[in-house]
Amino acid sequence: MKIVCKKNDILESINISLRAIPAKTTMPILGCIVIRANSNNIKFITNDMEMAIETIVKGRVIEDGSIAIDAKKFSDIVRKITDEEITIETNEYYMATIRYGNNEASFNCLSDEEFPDLPTVEKQNAIRISQFSLKEIILQTVFSISDNESQKIMTGELFEIEGDKLTVVALDGHRIAIRKITLNDEYKLTKVIIPGKTLLEITKILSGEVKDEINIYFTKNHVLFELENTIILSRLIDGEYYKINQMLSGDYDTKLKVNRRSFAESIDRSTLFIKETDKKPIILDIRDFTMNIKVNSQQGAINENLSVNKEGNDIMIGFNPKFLLDVIRVIDDEEITIYMTNAKAPCFIKNEDESYIYLILPINFNAAR
Amino acid sequence: MKIVCKKNDILESINISLRAIPAKTTMPILGCIVIRANSNNIKFITNDMEMAIETIVKGRVIEDGSIAIDAKKFSDIVRKITDEEITIETNEYYMATIRYGNNEASFNCLSDEEFPDLPTVEKQNAIRISQFSLKEIILQTVFSISDNESQKIMTGELFEIEGDKLTVVALDGHRIAIRKITLNDEYKLTKVIIPGKTLLEITKILSGEVKDEINIYFTKNHVLFELENTIILSRLIDGEYYKINQMLSGDYDTKLKVNRRSFAESIDRSTLFIKETDKKPIILDIRDFTMNIKVNSQQGAINENLSVNKEGNDIMIGFNPKFLLDVIRVIDDEEITIYMTNAKAPCFIKNEDESYIYLILPINFNAAR
Repeated sequence: MKIVCKKNDILESINISLRAIPAKTTMPILGCIVIRANSNNIKFITNDMEMAIETIVKGRVIEDGSIAIDAKKFSDIVRKITDEEITIETNEYYMATIRYGNNEASFNCLSDEEFPDLPTVEKQNAIRISQFSLKEIILQTVFSISDNESQKIMTGELFEIEGDKLTVVALDGHRIAIRKITLNDEYKLTKVIIPGKTLLEITKILSGEVKDEINIYFTKNHVLFELENTIILSRLIDGEYYKINQMLSGDYDTKLKVNRRSFAESIDRSTLFIKETDKKPIILDIRDFTMNIKVNSQQGAINENLSVNKEGNDIMIGFNPKFLLDVIRVIDDEEITIYMTNAKAPCFIKNEDESYIYLILPINFNAAR
Repeated sequence: MKIVCKKNDILESINISLRAIPAKTTMPILGCIVIRANSNNIKFITNDMEMAIETIVKGRVIEDGSIAIDAKKFSDIVRKITDEEITIETNEYYMATIRYGNNEASFNCLSDEEFPDLPTVEKQNAIRISQFSLKEIILQTVFSISDNESQKIMTGELFEIEGDKLTVVALDGHRIAIRKITLNDEYKLTKVIIPGKTLLEITKILSGEVKDEINIYFTKNHVLFELENTIILSRLIDGEYYKINQMLSGDYDTKLKVNRRSFAESIDRSTLFIKETDKKPIILDIRDFTMNIKVNSQQGAINENLSVNKEGNDIMIGFNPKFLLDVIRVIDDEEITIYMTNAKAPCFIKNEDESYIYLILPINFNAAR
């Protein structure tokens, strides 16, 4: 194999490929980027056995071939090269020589024959969505998945498509995040659970531009995300997702409007007195025009007051501040609306048209004090 | 105590004070910033038992007093406050209440009576130097100190003043770094060893401006650095510094000029093949117009060629690449000059007027291969 590429093109493709390099692995081949060059098409391929990425690299193919090169080493040397053009050439001993200016670096590599094959996905019935929207709905929900691998389904997100509606749901047993958007076309009913890790990696590859689109294909066990020069293929999580509709009641006794940014800043300060481990709640004491925010700890206390617009009953309620902050930070609206019933019932943060709905369970603050 | 300050003024003083907060301590009082307010003067004081910092904070004193507040907590809350003005008030139970806008945070604090007293230093015979120069000479030498506490003297830097010459020396047994500058005045002979840690922290407090000056005072056991609103007091290291003049020979068989930046980039790439632990050298093979840079390792090899201007003998010599890089990165000159004798003798990187001299011992590369 012999290819000639611009340094920046290689680097861009490496950055995409690295998203499917496992942090740790006992199989050296999975720590590699496979470079495959044939008929004027150069591809980088990576696979962490949950997710695979194939990306096309701009460049010239002088001789066909392939090699599996250690991703970290490859990435490190390319980053440190200051020349514009890079030549990569392999020999029959699986050595790859990278040439730049008058210099060269050689790497002992592996054959790509050991590299796990990617399953073939039939590209039928693409769901088209802008990269901006996909990135947004993932980032506005994915923090609510669980990282507990023993409850596999909670580590993924439900993607449900019905007609022209896409609903994304994440939950971890203490909270639920729901985002709904309208697609440009109608599709047949589809319900899949996509691993949260895959979705997080994808947000790092997506351009975030409204004008850039992405095609999504589903098969029984896989999902394929197709960008302009890159495809990302991931396993789906097997199983039936939780029925969430019955958890979403429309009733409430207190409706509260508060400035999002001030609320976020207050909660953020209050977390200084709460260690992740000791599960102390922040206590919101909500009256007609004021929300009083309180935390008491051995080290000290915080006591803040925010102007609010309240309808319905006064209420005193305790929360894990992190759960509130996670939600408040991803909402774009200047003002947020919170619906509550009592100190033990779920609280909802949602907008008028319910394009986002967040459910958070309160913490019993009498017991916690 | 009751004081009113601007948030940004407090934050600036906290950032300075934190430099003398130990990373770990079994004594909670050493993790505190002491706030002392009297007759319209507010001071923050910290002390890690090696070094102490006293800095004046802009603000209004409403009631005299003092308190010792946990530095990390204090720093965290002030960073998160968005109001411009902050009031700090203490009560008789050593609680400090920080007020901002409609809000307040209270901290359980300690009495400052437990706080170690700073030794009194008589301010005689100040040595005046620009903050820019002091910062520069420290950063251009301090990487050569040893972090081995069993050889205490090597963990400090020699500051030697003779007439209007200040010489700073750092060494660790494998290399020596020397910087000389001319002061604006003449001083009597002074030789002290200042802890490297103190010097590093000071570089983070110094403004780096040529127009800002600093006064330095020495006593038998201490050094005092006096800035406009801050004093830094440090213990000196006891003992006699190494005699370095006998190590600095003027003889050489090869004199080499090379572009500093290209050389740094080549060495930086070569380090990819060298783990800190395996002590592999990079090998420089220097001939008339070219320096060939080579590293061979199990994972691969690097082979680079740089244009050089050589006088004297050809030479092949091995180095710890980190030692070369440390030096090359702190020199400002576009081109550096390297003096060598043979593959076993120390190499020197220095300029014409010897305002900087770096000695590096080579590594026996035959044995290391």
